[in-house]
Amino acid sequence: MIDLTINTDLVQNILTGFIKSEVSRTGYSRAVINLSGGLDSAVSCVLAVEALGNENVLALRLPYKTSSNDSLDHAQLLINELKVRSLTIPITGMVEPLFEQFSDMSNIRKGNIMARSRMIIAYDQSEAFHGLVIGTGNKTEILLGYTTLYGDSASALNPIGDLYKTQVRQLATSLGVPKVIIDKPPSADLWQGQTDEDELGFTYGKVDQLLYLLVDQRYQPADCLEAGFEEKFVHSVINRIQRMQFKRNLPLIAKVSSRTIGSDFLYFRDWGT
Amino acid sequence: MIDLTINTDLVQNILTGFIKSEVSRTGYSRAVINLSGGLDSAVSCVLAVEALGNENVLALRLPYKTSSNDSLDHAQLLINELKVRSLTIPITGMVEPLFEQFSDMSNIRKGNIMARSRMIIAYDQSEAFHGLVIGTGNKTEILLGYTTLYGDSASALNPIGDLYKTQVRQLATSLGVPKVIIDKPPSADLWQGQTDEDELGFTYGKVDQLLYLLVDQRYQPADCLEAGFEEKFVHSVINRIQRMQFKRNLPLIAKVSSRTIGSDFLYFRDWGT
Repeated sequence: MIDLTINTDLVQNILTGFIKSEVSRTGYSRAVINLSGGLDSAVSCVLAVEALGNENVLALRLPYKTSSNDSLDHAQLLINELKVRSLTIPITGMVEPLFEQFSDMSNIRKGNIMARSRMIIAYDQSEAFHGLVIGTGNKTEILLGYTTLYGDSASALNPIGDLYKTQVRQLATSLGVPKVIIDKPPSADLWQGQTDEDELGFTYGKVDQLLYLLVDQRYQPADCLEAGFEEKFVHSVINRIQRMQFKRNLPLIAKVSSRTIGSDFLYFRDWGT
Repeated sequence: MIDLTINTDLVQNILTGFIKSEVSRTGYSRAVINLSGGLDSAVSCVLAVEALGNENVLALRLPYKTSSNDSLDHAQLLINELKVRSLTIPITGMVEPLFEQFSDMSNIRKGNIMARSRMIIAYDQSEAFHGLVIGTGNKTEILLGYTTLYGDSASALNPIGDLYKTQVRQLATSLGVPKVIIDKPPSADLWQGQTDEDELGFTYGKVDQLLYLLVDQRYQPADCLEAGFEEKFVHSVINRIQRMQFKRNLPLIAKVSSRTIGSDFLYFRDWGT
C-alpha cells in the first residue's frame, strides 16, 4: 500500500502563502473562483479566503439548466460558511445557440463548450472585480488530461494542482469543508448522472497510487507491475498521460528567428515585478 | 534603419513543413482556422492549405452583429480563392446574454468575451472536423500581449508566431493573399472603427524594429536609444512586454511534491508520439 498522506497543516501553510504572495506580487489583492459545488473548487476557495480575506474573494456559481440542484446548493453552503461575495450567472443562454445549431452534438462537445463558457465568465469577472482567477484542477486530473483545455484548466494561479485527488480530500477535511461536499461522488456535472470514476473507468484511490509511483517516484512500468498493478492498467495510464501532454503545453510556435516565444524567449510569469 | 526583410520562399517552406509534420505526428491530417478577414489569419490559412491541401482545411467566419461587412467579405474572398471548406457561425447569440446582464460592460470586456467565444467555436469544430486549431497570432502582438488570453491566442500550432507583423505582410504578398486584405489597416474588429495602431499608439513599422532589437538582438535600453528610439517609447515597450508575460505562461501551480507539473514535470507536446 502506497501512502499518499500529506501533512495537512504544512500544506495549508504553503498554499495560503503561495496565493498571498503570487496575488500581491502582480499588484492584485483579490481573487475570483468558479465554485462547481464539488471538492476541488471548495478547497481552492477556502485557501483563497484564508490567504486574502473573505471580502477579497468572489465566488461564482455558473449553472446550466441541467446542472444538479445539489451542485448549486453545495456551492451556496460554502459561500454562506465563508461569507464571501458571490454571483450566480447561468450559462444556459450562452451555450444554447451553439447546441441548437448542431443538434447532433455529443455530450463531450457540450461539456467542453460549457466548461469554456464558465472560463469566459470567470475571466470577465476577473476584469470587473479586479481579481486573479484561482485554479481548481488537481494533479490527478491534470496528469490524466481529464479537463477541458482553455476551460476549467484555465487560471492565473492553481493552489491545488500539485495534490492528487485523494490528497485534496485529506486537505478538505482538515480545512473544514462541509462533509456533504467531501462525501459525494466526484462529478464534473456536465450531464446528468455523470461521475468521474465511472467515466474514467477506475477509482481515484487506485490511480493516484499509480500516478505517484510513475510521476513522483519515477517508476518504470516494470516496477509498477512488481508493486502490484496490472499491466493493462499501467500502460493505459502511461499512454493517457502522454497523449494528454498537449493540454499541459502552450501553443507550439514555428521557429524562424533567433529568439522564439516558447523556445528560447522564456521568462517566469512575474518577470519584471 | 533596421532591416526586417525575410526570405519569403525559405520561410514559406519552413512554415508549411512545420504544419505538415506537426499535424501528422499527432495523428491528424486536418486543420481548423478562424478567418477574421485580416492579414494574419489569411496567411495562416494559405500556409495550412499548402501544407495539408484545401480539402483538409476548415475556415470559420464568426461574425458579431457589429462586425464590419468588409471582414466577412474578405474572409469569403479568401475562402473562394483557396476553395476551402467553410462555415459561418455568428457569435451574437452566444455573447449577448452576458452583454445584456452587465449593461455597463466596457469595450475591452466585450472584446475579450467575443475573442473567447470564437475560441469555443474553433475548438468545437476541431472536435467535429477532427482538425487541429491553427494559430493566427504574430510575434508583435504576442510580445505586446495585444491578444486575448484563451481567446485568439489559443491554438494547437501557430505557424506565424515568430514573424513580426511587418514580416507577415511580406509573406502575405509572396503568398498571393488578396491585395485588399494586405492593404487595409490592421484591426481586431471588436468594435466599429477600431484599428490596432490607433489603439496601441504607435505603428507596427516602428515597434517591430524596436522589438527586433530588444528581443532578437538582445539590445539593452541604452543601445536602443543610441539606435535612435525615444526613451519613453523604449521603456513603455519593455514594460509592456514584461507585464504581459503572464499571457505567455501556463497557470502557475503551487509546488508541494517532488515533481510538479510546469516546474519539473516537463515534456514536449509530442511526447510519446
